[in-house]
Amino acid sequence: MNAILDHINTRRDDSINQLKQFLAIPSISALPEHADDVRRCAEWCRAEMARIGLDKVQLFETPGHPIVYGEWLGAPGAPTLLFYGHYDVQPVDPLDLWETPPFEASVREGAIYARGAADDKGQIFMHLKAIEAHLAAGGRLPLNVKVLLEGEEEVGSANLDEFVAAHKDLLAADVVVISDSAMFDRDVPSICYGLRGLAYFQIDLRGSSTDLHSGSYGGAVANPAMVLAQLLAQMKDKSGRIKIPGFYDAVVDLTPEERAEYARLPFNEKRWAKEIGVPKPAGESGYSTLERKWARPTFEVNGLLAGFTGSGAKTVIPAVAMAKVSMRLVPNQDPETIGQQFEAYLKKIAPKSVSLTVTHMHGGRPWTTGFDNVWVQAAARAIEQGFGRKPVFVREGGSIPVVSTFQEVLGLPSVLFGIGLPGENAHAPNEWLDLGNFHNGVLASAYLYEELAAVKP
Amino acid sequence: MNAILDHINTRRDDSINQLKQFLAIPSISALPEHADDVRRCAEWCRAEMARIGLDKVQLFETPGHPIVYGEWLGAPGAPTLLFYGHYDVQPVDPLDLWETPPFEASVREGAIYARGAADDKGQIFMHLKAIEAHLAAGGRLPLNVKVLLEGEEEVGSANLDEFVAAHKDLLAADVVVISDSAMFDRDVPSICYGLRGLAYFQIDLRGSSTDLHSGSYGGAVANPAMVLAQLLAQMKDKSGRIKIPGFYDAVVDLTPEERAEYARLPFNEKRWAKEIGVPKPAGESGYSTLERKWARPTFEVNGLLAGFTGSGAKTVIPAVAMAKVSMRLVPNQDPETIGQQFEAYLKKIAPKSVSLTVTHMHGGRPWTTGFDNVWVQAAARAIEQGFGRKPVFVREGGSIPVVSTFQEVLGLPSVLFGIGLPGENAHAPNEWLDLGNFHNGVLASAYLYEELAAVKP
Repeated sequence: MNAILDHINTRRDDSINQLKQFLAIPSISALPEHADDVRRCAEWCRAEMARIGLDKVQLFETPGHPIVYGEWLGAPGAPTLLFYGHYDVQPVDPLDLWETPPFEASVREGAIYARGAADDKGQIFMHLKAIEAHLAAGGRLPLNVKVLLEGEEEVGSANLDEFVAAHKDLLAADVVVISDSAMFDRDVPSICYGLRGLAYFQIDLRGSSTDLHSGSYGGAVANPAMVLAQLLAQMKDKSGRIKIPGFYDAVVDLTPEERAEYARLPFNEKRWAKEIGVPKPAGESGYSTLERKWARPTFEVNGLLAGFTGSGAKTVIPAVAMAKVSMRLVPNQDPETIGQQFEAYLKKIAPKSVSLTVTHMHGGRPWTTGFDNVWVQAAARAIEQGFGRKPVFVREGGSIPVVSTFQEVLGLPSVLFGIGLPGENAHAPNEWLDLGNFHNGVLASAYLYEELAAVKP
Repeated sequence: MNAILDHINTRRDDSINQLKQFLAIPSISALPEHADDVRRCAEWCRAEMARIGLDKVQLFETPGHPIVYGEWLGAPGAPTLLFYGHYDVQPVDPLDLWETPPFEASVREGAIYARGAADDKGQIFMHLKAIEAHLAAGGRLPLNVKVLLEGEEEVGSANLDEFVAAHKDLLAADVVVISDSAMFDRDVPSICYGLRGLAYFQIDLRGSSTDLHSGSYGGAVANPAMVLAQLLAQMKDKSGRIKIPGFYDAVVDLTPEERAEYARLPFNEKRWAKEIGVPKPAGESGYSTLERKWARPTFEVNGLLAGFTGSGAKTVIPAVAMAKVSMRLVPNQDPETIGQQFEAYLKKIAPKSVSLTVTHMHGGRPWTTGFDNVWVQAAARAIEQGFGRKPVFVREGGSIPVVSTFQEVLGLPSVLFGIGLPGENAHAPNEWLDLGNFHNGVLASAYLYEELAAVKP
């Protein structure tokens, strides 16, 4: 390992200069006028992957932007790692808020500023540098590696699922590593081992055939906007617990170890509340803020619309009322089962004086590896070696669809190991990546391959 | 009385031909291009009022359309009746749905079709014909009469309140008669003796400074759209009773006589529900549909708006949520008191995790004479003589602002005696007035003056 670490340490500045080239390509996947730039960026990745010694490096065409693939399979009998990243970036508007041009990377106070620095080019490049160091210093990697780089992550990964399903053999592996997220905080490296799922619905109520005059009819007919409020209010009890029968049946409770781990995290709740402008946190009784947003299911109203919403007053009983609602799901809740339970409950509690329609919009499964997972523990050891600190184990309240794809299509666990930082402006002007984190991340990645190679799954 | 009745009966056809002239003037107050027609109509009223023998007939200019006034004060010691009507009419769009032109009155199957036939020219003319019959046949009226015709009722009576307040002496009287409403049903003449009031509010809730991602924050912050639903749901209990403390304190309960009167009315609830397209009636337990819409206070949600309301799904926790709500009030509820009670209750039940703003939009007092009121009973005897049937006593669930003006500014009770019919298309194409009702209404109005003259208030 020493030769590998030397290789990384002595080439630190070169790596940053190379990264600047990668960041100079405006590979904005959302804008058709940048389609050639996206392709140029894919070609840049292909060339770089070939240069460092990966085999079978190639572009796969899709109906959208190309996918870049390369592999090194010189470790028969050892595990195979599938690394996933994306080389496309977000748009840069509003351009005038950038302190330096988004595609001319600028180093200031130990950070590199450019679109894509954190999300996700910097983190892809971190792995390419670690792979390069292994191959250059030792002529080999301790495990088999497959690199899969997508060009459409920022526009919904429309073509990825189909590609993965069509290339199951090509992508066969033992574990996925994704570096496309932020650490819990500066100097707090972290591994994300759980994501919430989603079940999203629209509720439509109809009372009368047209809006009614609230004087002539008020009090004698159901008001769908009021009924909607009554139905929504019946979704939670006073402690914030969701009242849909069966809703918690499949929920895997937090373990004492997980709760202790979260409680140890340096989380400043007051600062967090102030940053988003809420008077105070709120949620299910008996759980901390981190537990609520990472590991407990939710019921949220995402939208409401009924009757008169302009300025002034209109004395109308709305004919219809609509709500968009969604539930974040935790392991092992199933979006389809939850959808059936929700609709059955709504139908049971809705009065006969209105007609009810429930539309199932979309769903996604929750995901977790558990933090005692062998791959996750291997990654933790690597991070400790790279950063000089043990990582913390966190979850994320939202979803990362590609994680579900790898789980469901390839049957693979994912290790989510990101080196961004809170406030990195991933989708905003002045995106940046801490260069200390980048360097430690290259070291940690180099250790990661060693640690993963030693896993006996 | 016989000479008066003869005068009316023998001139029945002439009256209808004269009414056609009145209906031929397109006095659409809402449309600036008809301003001259509105004035021409006011002049027509002035000429007609002078022709039948009223004194001091004149136009009063306002910032909008003129007010027409005339009086006959030849009965010293007798009560004074103030008759109110409006000579302006609604617009006629969509014109292509009219079977005959809106300003060329057409008689078909016992009804006269034209804009303004029922609302309110036909009903004004009914009184002018009854006054004319008295003055022509007997040279006098049994009581003093003041006629006040407005030209802006269909655009909100913007200048009436100020005119009434500035002419208290001119308009001093003992009772107001208004004929600008419909009978309960065909062959069911009616007197309206009660109106509901109104208190209208906007509720604004704010959770966070901007919309939040429901994955990253869901479960850990209050959702203002959900809180709004919970607050609204706490406004009523399961029996439909409003939970605002003190809300019912001033409510005058329905008397057994009133409930018996309503129960006798030929009200087809199923047909009513079908006409407005509601699956079934709904409302406060223990009250009939007519009781609910006429004599019980309400809490209605008039509008709801929060978060994402477009098509598809957006996983957002709304930063803000808004509701428009209003309460119909019954005697003797006071809109200001109700507003204070409502705001106090909302502030008490709103969680500290959101900020709450309550805006008091507007209010109006409920009104009733009671149906044992002497003027109302006198009108009932007149209607029985004119129509050959006792009238029923009804209320109206909405408000008629001019009734409040007369009550509050002049201290006068109003008798609401209308001869329109349900389905008369007052604000729609093919407005019509039943000519049998019109003729009986002229007779009833002639009797009305006799009966009111005999009242000792």
